[in-house]
Parts: sequence; C-alpha cells; structure tokens
Amino acid sequence: MQLFYSKLIQNQEIILEAEEKIHCTQVLRKKVEDEIYVVDGIGNLYKTRILSIQKHTCVCSIIETTPHFGNHPYFLRMCVAPTKNIDRFEFFVEKAVELGVNEIIPIISENSERKIIKPERIEKIIVSAMKQSYKSSKPILHDIITAKALFAQQFKGIQCIAHCYESEKTSIAKLLQTPQPITICIGPEGDFSEKEVALARTNNWQEITLGTSRLRTETAGIAAVHSVYEKFV
Amino acid sequence: MQLFYSKLIQNQEIILEAEEKIHCTQVLRKKVEDEIYVVDGIGNLYKTRILSIQKHTCVCSIIETTPHFGNHPYFLRMCVAPTKNIDRFEFFVEKAVELGVNEIIPIISENSERKIIKPERIEKIIVSAMKQSYKSSKPILHDIITAKALFAQQFKGIQCIAHCYESEKTSIAKLLQTPQPITICIGPEGDFSEKEVALARTNNWQEITLGTSRLRTETAGIAAVHSVYEKFV
Repeated sequence: MQLFYSKLIQNQEIILEAEEKIHCTQVLRKKVEDEIYVVDGIGNLYKTRILSIQKHTCVCSIIETTPHFGNHPYFLRMCVAPTKNIDRFEFFVEKAVELGVNEIIPIISENSERKIIKPERIEKIIVSAMKQSYKSSKPILHDIITAKALFAQQFKGIQCIAHCYESEKTSIAKLLQTPQPITICIGPEGDFSEKEVALARTNNWQEITLGTSRLRTETAGIAAVHSVYEKFV
Repeated sequence: MQLFYSKLIQNQEIILEAEEKIHCTQVLRKKVEDEIYVVDGIGNLYKTRILSIQKHTCVCSIIETTPHFGNHPYFLRMCVAPTKNIDRFEFFVEKAVELGVNEIIPIISENSERKIIKPERIEKIIVSAMKQSYKSSKPILHDIITAKALFAQQFKGIQCIAHCYESEKTSIAKLLQTPQPITICIGPEGDFSEKEVALARTNNWQEITLGTSRLRTETAGIAAVHSVYEKFV
C-alpha cells in the first residue's frame, strides 16, 4: 500500500498538491478512477478514488475513513541536539518517526557545533517516514531552541535528560512504570555542559542512563525512542 | 580518549600500520614518547607509549593492559539482509556495533534486491564504530549466505526470525527471560518469502515480533539489537 499525504480536505474531497501530486500522477502514473490511500497527518487514513487530475492538483473523493491509523499508544517528545553531520540527525528523525514519536524539538547546547537546521528538509523526512511506516499522524517539528530555554520549561508528565556525567540515574523503563507523557532530552556530540545539567536538575528534569555503551547522539536518540516504544507496543 | 586499532602485538609492543598509522602520526600528529590507547579487537585495551615512527609503521610500547574493555554482557548474532541502498545497511552495522553485537551475518533472501556487499567497507565501519564507542572487541563479519543456508543451521541458544506474516509470535524480551546466546534474523525490504519462513519454522527458529510499527530493515535490526542491549545492560 502506497500512502499519500494531504491536509487539504473538504466536503468529502481531498486535494493532492506539489510533490504528492507529482508522485501520484507522474511517477506512479495513477489515473482518474484509480483508488489511492491518503493520510492527513492528524490521525486519519482515507481510501479515495481519483476524480480529476489538473496541472497542479489531483482531486480525490473519500470512499472510507480509518481514524487513529498507525497511532502509537504513548506520548513522546524528543529534544535532541542536531549533529555536526546533519545526516546523523536526519537518520534519528526518520527512525524516531518510524518507531513512533509525537514531537521533536531540536536544541542548541553550549557544546553544539551545529546551531542551525533546515526545517523544510526535516519536515520532508518526517512526511516520508510517516508514509513509509504506515502512520497517519505527523510528528510536530518545533523551532530550534537553546537547552537553557528548554530546561526552564515544565512539560506535562515525565521530563528527563540523558548525559554522561557521573550522577544518580534511572532508566526510561523504570520511569515509565505507569503510562504518562514523556519528554526526553539528548545532548550534542560533546554532551551538555555541566551548567546545563545543573539547570535541568534544578528544574526537576530527571537524569537517565541509556546503558553502559558510549552512544553517538543519534544512536542515543533512537535508543531512547525504542525504550519507550518497547515499553508500550 | 582516542582509540587506535591493531592486531600486531608481540613482546609488549604494538605496531600500528596503514590507516591507523596515518591517523595517529599524520592526522593527529602524535610524536615519539606520546601516550596513545590501542585496542586489539579481541577484548583488550592497551595504554602505550610511542617508541618509534617509520614510514609505514608506528611502534608502541605497552604500559598497561585493561582486559574485557567495553565488552557487553550478552552474546548476540545478527543475521540481516543488506538493503538495496547500502547506506541503510551500513547504518545498521554502525549502530549494532555501538550498542553491542558479536557477529553479523549478511543474508540473501529470495526477496533480496541486493545480493552482494563489499566486506572491506563494512569492516572499516565496524572498526570505526568499535573505536568510537570505546569497545575493544571487534564483531565478526561473516560471508554473505542465503537465508535458506542460514535456516538450515543450528546455533547455540535462542535462534529467532522477525517477519511480517500473520503467526504466533513472541518478543525478544520474553525469549530472553534467562540469559543465553541469541541469534536474530531480519529480512529484506520485501520480507522473507513464505517458503523461507516455513523453512525457519521447520528448523526450530522462533518467530518474533518487533512491535506494531512497520519498520524498515535497518530499523528492525537496530530495534532488535537494542531490545537485547536493554535486557542486559
């Protein structure tokens, strides 16, 4: 099953635009009357039939709606410092979406070598991974913020930080004994600064360990998502 | 700490060659008398001092030996079908080594689009990930074999296969209630063929699920390694 993505839904009709339209009608050569499946990024899968194809749009009529399609049974917000080599961060994003994540907040730590990202590019990876892994909810990509600003916030549920300094730490599995929303923060290649960790601690972020192996940023991110996934799926 | 890799160890001396030598003396500009750390790929970390630097070699004297450095407390053999886009398989290999894996067997399924790999390239990724994640044991990369040949083998401990067909499946965590060696098999993009799954079943390979998300081959591989890692680390 090939999924398409569109937010343009009205009166039992869905419009595919831009790349989605091109992929549908030019790459896959779908024609009027063909049935295609579309997700709306907010939890619904639509079985549709193509009504008309114009230069820039493809209009489809909804035949059937499946709500909560491919949704995961937990709420996970991942705050991760983009890696110097952006491919690694993009790989984390793709894997997080495949496994199941709700929100991604790129963060800048004092030790970050990379302080900017291209949100449009990350959005494309999110949409592609959502469709490829048969999900209908598109994770939210937030604007990049500093770790300092992040740790000053209070999120609902559990909020935790993974770092490599010596301290009392617990595991994600232990924190999630009872189901609740979880926000996990992963630092850059050089780890968070001690100041940042202290700030997180002051603001009630719990310190977690991801095991004894020394993991790269993107591996730590994927491992953290998988810990939550495995706990509930 | 920067690690170097060498198998050439004799009489309390270690010789760095080829890329390791170049990286040490040309890239990092290490000099005679500098202290460097070397792993041997079979479980030992050596603190050494550089004795001499020649054109093709760098000879180091062992000051201190740390056995079992960075070893993981389980035995894991991953059998994975290389992906059409080799980057994805290489990413799996890197992440598996970072988390902790003992052996990797590339396999060819009836549905494999990729039937060859470059072992030298994969070996380089293994060595690089081993050093980067502070491990001293180099996972073994086996020759590529067919799924049919693999499923005919009997491995010590648990042997299991992940596939997407409907059947009675268990999870890795449940299989590993008691610690024992585990061999996990992950198919190609188009999954194993039904014939291959039937063969595995006949030969007592247990069927496992990796949860409800539809995961790409490399994601399934990383998820499986992380399930074992999380159980013991």
